[in-house]
Amino acid sequence: MKKHQQEIINKLKTLQDHICKELELLDGSSHFIEDNWEREEGGGGRSRVLSDGEIIDKGGVNFSAVHGPVSEMMNKQLGLNGDFFLATGVSIVIHPKNPFHPIMHMNVRYFEMDNGEYWFGGGIDMTPHYIDKKLAGDFHRSLKEVCDKYNAEFYPRFKKWADDYFYIPHRQETRGVGGIFYDHLTEEVGVSKTDLLNYAIDLGELFPKVYAHQINSDRSPKYEEEHLTWRNLRRGRYVEFNLVNDRGTKFGLKTGGRIESILMSLPKNASWFYNFQPEKNSKEQETLELLIKGVDWLES
Amino acid sequence: MKKHQQEIINKLKTLQDHICKELELLDGSSHFIEDNWEREEGGGGRSRVLSDGEIIDKGGVNFSAVHGPVSEMMNKQLGLNGDFFLATGVSIVIHPKNPFHPIMHMNVRYFEMDNGEYWFGGGIDMTPHYIDKKLAGDFHRSLKEVCDKYNAEFYPRFKKWADDYFYIPHRQETRGVGGIFYDHLTEEVGVSKTDLLNYAIDLGELFPKVYAHQINSDRSPKYEEEHLTWRNLRRGRYVEFNLVNDRGTKFGLKTGGRIESILMSLPKNASWFYNFQPEKNSKEQETLELLIKGVDWLES
Repeated sequence: MKKHQQEIINKLKTLQDHICKELELLDGSSHFIEDNWEREEGGGGRSRVLSDGEIIDKGGVNFSAVHGPVSEMMNKQLGLNGDFFLATGVSIVIHPKNPFHPIMHMNVRYFEMDNGEYWFGGGIDMTPHYIDKKLAGDFHRSLKEVCDKYNAEFYPRFKKWADDYFYIPHRQETRGVGGIFYDHLTEEVGVSKTDLLNYAIDLGELFPKVYAHQINSDRSPKYEEEHLTWRNLRRGRYVEFNLVNDRGTKFGLKTGGRIESILMSLPKNASWFYNFQPEKNSKEQETLELLIKGVDWLES
Repeated sequence: MKKHQQEIINKLKTLQDHICKELELLDGSSHFIEDNWEREEGGGGRSRVLSDGEIIDKGGVNFSAVHGPVSEMMNKQLGLNGDFFLATGVSIVIHPKNPFHPIMHMNVRYFEMDNGEYWFGGGIDMTPHYIDKKLAGDFHRSLKEVCDKYNAEFYPRFKKWADDYFYIPHRQETRGVGGIFYDHLTEEVGVSKTDLLNYAIDLGELFPKVYAHQINSDRSPKYEEEHLTWRNLRRGRYVEFNLVNDRGTKFGLKTGGRIESILMSLPKNASWFYNFQPEKNSKEQETLELLIKGVDWLES
């Protein structure tokens, strides 16, 4: 491992530690359990899961740093120009218990080839079971603030990218209220490599803050059975996106990644009812109508 | 529509009617609800769902007959040599309530191009949450009996095909105890086109019989909460197969089929626990160990 690679890996491990500590504090009841795993061809990871907390129903915070020869499948999937690669990152999905708390996802990752080529990718997106416009606005404003520290074009560009990426074509619905998404980011964008790394770490550190803001706006909203039913149906959509559309998951499944770490993103349970239609003018219907691309959440 | 096409379509509609009637009798409590739908480019279908029965938790019996110009996406997915197609079939998935009753799937389909090319496809496979070897054997013996009426090579060939098709590579598990699967079947196999249609109808008529045999061997086995938990985890695997691996589902999602009819195959609910491992020597572990290719169920 080269020195700069080890530094990036260490920063991401520290980031994972920090996020897990903050999420445990936020939950207040349960703790992460860690599984260390190794990859036969090189590298490995630390998978951490928190289950049955006060706030969090199932949450996964994965760190991994894998390296080795570029396989034929990787080449086919990524179109790489090189023989050896390093891929490292932190990936999170939190499924809360309370239907009025949102599902939240984050991923920051770094990729490097032995020919010196590198790029960063990442994103944060939020999937409320019930959309609160003000809280969706707060979320986007926080993202914009971090983006603007590095490049004024990041937020508008990556916000649109998230709208397009976190989209379920067969449902013609966005996964939630979006957020930001970016990939193949290099210093060509006018930000130094050091700052691209800082940007990734800043986004990672933002994650527990924005999630805490969402949760602490009301730690225990009252709900009925019908809200749990809707939560489970929305979890079903999350499963559909992750298994059918998410490039990261599909890549992991095809290239033989550690299955339990890849599918940590799935909720503890999910539902599918045939042709379920929410009642007119219901909260559920209102949320559905907001699951579209191009909403300017900064104005909410 | 040509005369022979209309005949096939009528036989498949009659088959759907017959199966629905038999399944309602078997359930004894709930009834199918029908949705008729039309496809913009030509054709349509009758989707029927039975929910919350005494035996059946969620069951879908779809008939469809769609036709029209071959789209670019269809060409890409199927590699067709023609401009217009007809695709018609009956497709079923039954998710039972009781964890000791099996999930059962069947599909028979006919495809024809305007250049005269045609083929049949189909299959029946069974996914017990808990495998009963004797009942798995009964299932396979019934399949073999119908296959043998047409061609002695059908059962061994299509049994192996099912082992390979109903397989979840990322889990290294078969979906269940398999059954039969076939595709692109033409008279080149030494069976007349008329008999290939008869074979499809025979398999369709076999479906309610073999399912009734599984259910009536014990209509209400006692179960505890832990068995429901296991049922839901196995339903999770069913969701994974259908969304990640099933060619029919993927084709439907990509070519813009009617989404609620395609995803009728998903269970009412499903679960994912991180890295769940059944206890040693438990019934759950015993079932897991049997989810492998190449088991000769005829001997069970």
